[in-house]
Amino acid sequence: MRDGLKKFIENKYVTDFILFVIIFNAVILGLMTYPGLYSRFGNFFHISCLLCVIIFTIEMFIKLYVYKKSFFKDGWNIFDFTLVAISWVPTGGVFSSFRALRVLRALRALRLVTRLQKLRLIVQAIIDSIPNVGWASVLLALIFYIFAIMGTTMYAETFPQYFGSIGKSMFTLFQIMSLDDWATELARPIMAVFPFAWVYFVSFILLSSFVVMNVIVGVIVNAISEISEYNKKVQERKKLQKCTNIEIELYKLKKQIAVVENLLKADKESNS
Amino acid sequence: MRDGLKKFIENKYVTDFILFVIIFNAVILGLMTYPGLYSRFGNFFHISCLLCVIIFTIEMFIKLYVYKKSFFKDGWNIFDFTLVAISWVPTGGVFSSFRALRVLRALRALRLVTRLQKLRLIVQAIIDSIPNVGWASVLLALIFYIFAIMGTTMYAETFPQYFGSIGKSMFTLFQIMSLDDWATELARPIMAVFPFAWVYFVSFILLSSFVVMNVIVGVIVNAISEISEYNKKVQERKKLQKCTNIEIELYKLKKQIAVVENLLKADKESNS
Amino acid sequence: MRDGLKKFIENKYVTDFILFVIIFNAVILGLMTYPGLYSRFGNFFHISCLLCVIIFTIEMFIKLYVYKKSFFKDGWNIFDFTLVAISWVPTGGVFSSFRALRVLRALRALRLVTRLQKLRLIVQAIIDSIPNVGWASVLLALIFYIFAIMGTTMYAETFPQYFGSIGKSMFTLFQIMSLDDWATELARPIMAVFPFAWVYFVSFILLSSFVVMNVIVGVIVNAISEISEYNKKVQERKKLQKCTNIEIELYKLKKQIAVVENLLKADKESNS
Amino acid sequence: MRDGLKKFIENKYVTDFILFVIIFNAVILGLMTYPGLYSRFGNFFHISCLLCVIIFTIEMFIKLYVYKKSFFKDGWNIFDFTLVAISWVPTGGVFSSFRALRVLRALRALRLVTRLQKLRLIVQAIIDSIPNVGWASVLLALIFYIFAIMGTTMYAETFPQYFGSIGKSMFTLFQIMSLDDWATELARPIMAVFPFAWVYFVSFILLSSFVVMNVIVGVIVNAISEISEYNKKVQERKKLQKCTNIEIELYKLKKQIAVVENLLKADKESNS
Repeated sequence: MRDGLKKFIENKYVTDFILFVIIFNAVILGLMTYPGLYSRFGNFFHISCLLCVIIFTIEMFIKLYVYKKSFFKDGWNIFDFTLVAISWVPTGGVFSSFRALRVLRALRALRLVTRLQKLRLIVQAIIDSIPNVGWASVLLALIFYIFAIMGTTMYAETFPQYFGSIGKSMFTLFQIMSLDDWATELARPIMAVFPFAWVYFVSFILLSSFVVMNVIVGVIVNAISEISEYNKKVQERKKLQKCTNIEIELYKLKKQIAVVENLLKADKESNS
Repeated sequence: MRDGLKKFIENKYVTDFILFVIIFNAVILGLMTYPGLYSRFGNFFHISCLLCVIIFTIEMFIKLYVYKKSFFKDGWNIFDFTLVAISWVPTGGVFSSFRALRVLRALRALRLVTRLQKLRLIVQAIIDSIPNVGWASVLLALIFYIFAIMGTTMYAETFPQYFGSIGKSMFTLFQIMSLDDWATELARPIMAVFPFAWVYFVSFILLSSFVVMNVIVGVIVNAISEISEYNKKVQERKKLQKCTNIEIELYKLKKQIAVVENLLKADKESNS
Repeated sequence: MRDGLKKFIENKYVTDFILFVIIFNAVILGLMTYPGLYSRFGNFFHISCLLCVIIFTIEMFIKLYVYKKSFFKDGWNIFDFTLVAISWVPTGGVFSSFRALRVLRALRALRLVTRLQKLRLIVQAIIDSIPNVGWASVLLALIFYIFAIMGTTMYAETFPQYFGSIGKSMFTLFQIMSLDDWATELARPIMAVFPFAWVYFVSFILLSSFVVMNVIVGVIVNAISEISEYNKKVQERKKLQKCTNIEIELYKLKKQIAVVENLLKADKESNS
Repeated sequence: MRDGLKKFIENKYVTDFILFVIIFNAVILGLMTYPGLYSRFGNFFHISCLLCVIIFTIEMFIKLYVYKKSFFKDGWNIFDFTLVAISWVPTGGVFSSFRALRVLRALRALRLVTRLQKLRLIVQAIIDSIPNVGWASVLLALIFYIFAIMGTTMYAETFPQYFGSIGKSMFTLFQIMSLDDWATELARPIMAVFPFAWVYFVSFILLSSFVVMNVIVGVIVNAISEISEYNKKVQERKKLQKCTNIEIELYKLKKQIAVVENLLKADKESNS
């Protein structure tokens, strides 16, 4: 029976049907946000949503039964499983006040990524660039932390809405890094009180953009060197092939000459 | 007669004349926007515009007659044809309320791209980079859609001007992605009501900029690997040439030695 | 006397003195902007400024006398000459109302670029990247022109401060391209009147950023391919050297075998 | 005793302990910014801070004693030493009004960079890219200075808050370069008074972004050429190895043929 289910779940019609259900569910989730449609077709929306989740859950159970432990060896399966599991987080009743939980169902549309090969490749490429980004973001976090402590120490009293706590300072620093309204809203009013505040802002902008530039350069260089390494290996193999040909020819030559040598030696011996 | 028309339409003077008409038309369209000039020379403007369109249309008809079906095999011809066809969309009378239609005539200046080789190359390069950009923009669209559903679900009631519907949310997300006033206008007021809204904004900015960075890196890497591949082929050919020379030399050597061998063998035979 | 002047003008002490005068002049021009200092040392500033310009002019005249026509063959000399010539544009008296002319004297500090080798190299690199940027900026200008016509046609009446004329529209489009306040200040108010205005803004942002991305990618790819081409030539030469060695060895081998062949042939002949 | 101290200071447990103290100190400095915690645990915070500094100082003294002059040959040691020295700058009493000095203690968290290899590599990479950035930033500084003089000369009277002095103009130009609110806040109001001010703003934005683009391209190209040079050396060595093999084979061949030649000559001599 396990083999039968495996064939069933890997059948093209079944996977296409699941793909269709994912898209259908995403569309329904989109339509649900229109109050006019919701008040009229609310029940239909809720029932079809539930149906989609049930289909996803059955699919997951079949896959779990078919692949057993090896199911969790693929990162994409874990990703899929988590998205389906999240769908069963209760959102009504006692939990209705946690609006954020209801929002998580929109994540179900991300299952599309698992299903479409091209999207998987892009996401994989982005994930692969994380090691590069990783330590640079630790450095960035350190810079953020140090500037947040400095900002909070200096400006917490006069500008509590921006630098009231480490958390608020971090958000403000993120805004400064994104260069959004940093001068008009933040630097100029603060400089009116602390004339030397420009040192804080300008140094943070320069530092953070240097680190970000370093990250981008790192990702580009990495991607290029990977490709060129691959190209070089291909080229190398061709060249080795060619070189080996020459060596084989030389080996044959040596053999030929050895024959000549032996003939001569035999000649000499027979002569003497 | 078809050959005569072909010669005529491909004549340098004729193509230069068409180029001149395109530029002249673009200048007229620019001058028309000045109310002072329009009120004085309105009639002249309209007549010369019409004349330009008539010249373009005659050109198109001749080309259609000359090249027949093969005309539509070149994407640039289709582009040109569409721009000329748009010129005949009625804008006066009943349609005068559709100001947008009148605006489309400005697109006629785009015919310059078809005419100038250098511009065509750049546009071609941009179009060629679309496959790279293509799937990444599907991923971006998915991220936009999911965040739009989330945003609409959470903030539609309190901030209808920004997150009132999926469409409005999408526009707001585009604004956030462009980092324009995202903190001052959007994140801070929303965070005053929903303290955890920063998760939504920061995660969207990080996600979208990662995808965009991935696209740019992809385009750069692609362009470089294309060039280096071309270079490698050229280099390869040179090297193969060189290697073949060595092999030819080795082949000649082998022949020489074979001669020596045969001489010796003949020697031996004659001796015995 | 011409040779003597040539030695004088190319003397290290003289060029260092001119470099010092350039920096001194730049500092004076900076100090002149402080009203407190200007009211006290105004006369001193004006006299030293005049002195600097006189020194520069004498330098120019000597160079013109020494190098004659070949002086204008170097772009940097023309650049220097223009900057010194601008210094003699009258700014007082009747012309005192043209404040812009007085501002041009600050450009004299640019002579530093001609004098410092490293700065010249960077400016040269930027100028060298212009051919790449050149045609792309023609395309960008075309896109600007078309969108300016469209914007003026559609929004001139309701938003004259932003789209009142082709010129104003161009500036507004430049602002949109720089992503500064495009949504808050421009798109949202205009969308309140014309609900479909987002098509105009979003398509312009996408188009212009695509072209700009294309330019940047082009500059990067160009710089890399130039370097790699140089590297390849160096490498090629080394390889050719190596290959030639092998061929020389093969040639020597052939000669050796020819000797063997001749010996055998002679042997045979003597035998027969 | 010096050897014993050296072993002690390079002991893994001791370095891990110092790493722990650095992190602990950073956390304490963060907690100190919360007024609620500070009022309750203020004394504890101050004492543990002092303890951390004392531990750092002892570590420094031991290192100075152990490595002597060679201690200052490593840039990272100087960096560490400076951070510890700054900790002893008095902040209380007479100096309590210099809040900025108190802020410097947050820099101590930067010692983490010295301790974590990966962070050091990133910082090293950023520092290594400075020569590229260096002269370009001299050029940028020159552009800033010239535009600051121009801006102050033209707009100091009407817009003293933005262009009141060279310093203020520089900050405003930095804001313009970061494209933050340049149009809404600066260019548009100034253009209302000086209609041709757009030349100033647009030319500055174009110039500064060109220089910045040049810097980024320079850093990318440098990083790539460094990697490809390294790759080429590795490849070269392999190829040389291969080529040498062929030459050795040729040498052996020549020896073999020489043997044949000698045999023949000996043959001939014995015959004659």
